[in-house]
Amino acid sequence: MKKILILGSTGSIGRQTLDVIRNHPGKFKVIGLACNANMTLLEEQIREFKPKFIAIGQESKLQFDSRKVFYGEKGLLELIREADYDLAVLAIVGAAGLRPAIEIIRAGKSMALATKEVMVLAGKLINEEIKKKNSKLQKQNKPLIKLFPIDSEHSAIWQSLHSGQPKEIEKIFLTCSGGPFRNKTIEELQNITAEDALRHPTWNMGKRITIDSSTLMNKGLEVIEAKWLFGIQASQIEVVIHPQSILHSAVMFQDGSVIGQLSLPDMRIPIQYALSYPQRFKNHFPRMSFTQISTLTFDKPDMKKFPCLQYGFKAANEGGTLATAINAADEVAVKLFLEKKIKFPDIAGIIKKTMDRHKNINNPTLEQILKADAKARETARIISSNLISK
Amino acid sequence: MKKILILGSTGSIGRQTLDVIRNHPGKFKVIGLACNANMTLLEEQIREFKPKFIAIGQESKLQFDSRKVFYGEKGLLELIREADYDLAVLAIVGAAGLRPAIEIIRAGKSMALATKEVMVLAGKLINEEIKKKNSKLQKQNKPLIKLFPIDSEHSAIWQSLHSGQPKEIEKIFLTCSGGPFRNKTIEELQNITAEDALRHPTWNMGKRITIDSSTLMNKGLEVIEAKWLFGIQASQIEVVIHPQSILHSAVMFQDGSVIGQLSLPDMRIPIQYALSYPQRFKNHFPRMSFTQISTLTFDKPDMKKFPCLQYGFKAANEGGTLATAINAADEVAVKLFLEKKIKFPDIAGIIKKTMDRHKNINNPTLEQILKADAKARETARIISSNLISK
Repeated sequence: MKKILILGSTGSIGRQTLDVIRNHPGKFKVIGLACNANMTLLEEQIREFKPKFIAIGQESKLQFDSRKVFYGEKGLLELIREADYDLAVLAIVGAAGLRPAIEIIRAGKSMALATKEVMVLAGKLINEEIKKKNSKLQKQNKPLIKLFPIDSEHSAIWQSLHSGQPKEIEKIFLTCSGGPFRNKTIEELQNITAEDALRHPTWNMGKRITIDSSTLMNKGLEVIEAKWLFGIQASQIEVVIHPQSILHSAVMFQDGSVIGQLSLPDMRIPIQYALSYPQRFKNHFPRMSFTQISTLTFDKPDMKKFPCLQYGFKAANEGGTLATAINAADEVAVKLFLEKKIKFPDIAGIIKKTMDRHKNINNPTLEQILKADAKARETARIISSNLISK
Repeated sequence: MKKILILGSTGSIGRQTLDVIRNHPGKFKVIGLACNANMTLLEEQIREFKPKFIAIGQESKLQFDSRKVFYGEKGLLELIREADYDLAVLAIVGAAGLRPAIEIIRAGKSMALATKEVMVLAGKLINEEIKKKNSKLQKQNKPLIKLFPIDSEHSAIWQSLHSGQPKEIEKIFLTCSGGPFRNKTIEELQNITAEDALRHPTWNMGKRITIDSSTLMNKGLEVIEAKWLFGIQASQIEVVIHPQSILHSAVMFQDGSVIGQLSLPDMRIPIQYALSYPQRFKNHFPRMSFTQISTLTFDKPDMKKFPCLQYGFKAANEGGTLATAINAADEVAVKLFLEKKIKFPDIAGIIKKTMDRHKNINNPTLEQILKADAKARETARIISSNLISK
């Protein structure tokens, strides 16, 4: 039985991770659960999975039997150090996942990573931390730690990469549904509402990622993530609009052969693979059929209509804290859009202006990243306040 | 430098193999070349690649410097035993490839296999020979031999399989261009000419395989081949019509994840992979682009219009010498069709009647297979003579 620690257990990925575990009795043991504040769901999860360790965002009066309970960020990091597990699933939303990710690595544990921000903000740092830890583990003759992506696109690339060596990658085709506004004109994009944007055509996800999918900022962040996860250049990544969301991404190797991963859009497939790797466990999730799908289409993205994608490429190219600034500005802008305080195109506008005012720092430390994050949020808020007051 | 022996060097696959080798100076050394009768091309190949060993179909007055020359089938088998090579490329047309295949295995050499008939006629036997040889090699602490498929579909499956274990295969999607007559009615198929059938929409191949592609007999034989190559049941194979010939086949694993291989239709890609495995060498063959291709379509095959595909499934299901009978009858029928002596639908008719008269032998020896082959040819000729005299 593989011992699993789930950080962010009450979110979308956390719940689907538990569903995968539920589908494979005897294969996994949930050692610990951590969430921020959804106590009702956490209590249910505790009753069902009986974890030894629990971490919650703040002090609570709830009773947890004889279980060990940790509180706040400090408590979460303690849990990561103290608990005995084989794999940590990191599905904490946003930049809050950064310190836990580093702590998992330093604890010498492998990680299934759903929190995009970890590689977007700190890809270089994370890779260095893993390298450092693995060289220590190697000297001690201990198993090396690995990072397994959960994002459907990056899982697809990882699964496809088994057919060759990372150094044999010629390019990566990162597919993108195109979001719900693919066929709208720039004029029509002016009046998009939050309700419109929350209707994603193929994936059922959290609110921020759904808005990010409609602006293609999500794909822009994935470009940055792919760069660090697979050790490639931004110029080796081609984003391809693929509205059916069946081909989840593909790798072209240097011999001209392309390997891709396809399935119905069901996050449980990449989650399960990250949990079961190197094995593939039998499940009963719905299956894809080529003849039922019948047609797969591919198109170039319109970077003018969706400038956020371009920003992602820029940050992947330049490195440093620029990606942190973009991500922070996006988070601020999306929140304001969901609160109906700004218009849809303002999201890209706020990000662009925040980027312009950002002073990029190369090879940033964790502290510099967190500082850049806070600073960019402040900048984005100032920029937005001008828009709101209009 | 990997030492390569090429059997069938003047045929379509043989020539493309040499083109791959030509594209990678310093990576491969051509140790030996074997062909049947195309002396002009063989002489050119000898001048360019300077092999130590040569085998030709019959005695010849040509001078071959100080090279070692073998004649006839017996000579070919001697060459296989005597020459020093790392990999044999078997691209001899038809059932004539059977004995050489077994000899390569017994010589303890790995094989890149283009000759479909080897697995169609003797898949079980070949697998047993490899198993026997490998258990001996293992005891002697020698490297085990491997079989690398060259057929684009089977190479695609092999490349996709790196993402999981053979025992984790749930099903295989074997793609098929559908041939040039995909959209014709049964009535229209009556009057197809050899010229019509020789125009394959996506692949440029030899004559028999082009006709076999137009009847879908080729796909039927590939079903049998896939069964033996990958140790699966016929019921785990789904043939999917995919007119663009970009997705060359795909594997669905038991977790619902599908891995597929895509490229432009260029046989040099699977040939090169069989030669360079486990590496992938950089080349400058034309590259595929998802956005240029734009649309991939998938459809169910019409087994009524193309009964040969059904026969392939039947033979894969029943095993024994039935596949041998089908292949032999097809070879006879295709030859007559190319000579304009029978009509297009007669090809399937002759195969069907030969199957009906065939007495299936389970677990056949090589001798029984060759006898069944000869017997089925005779049966097919008798059946055809009635058609021709009409």
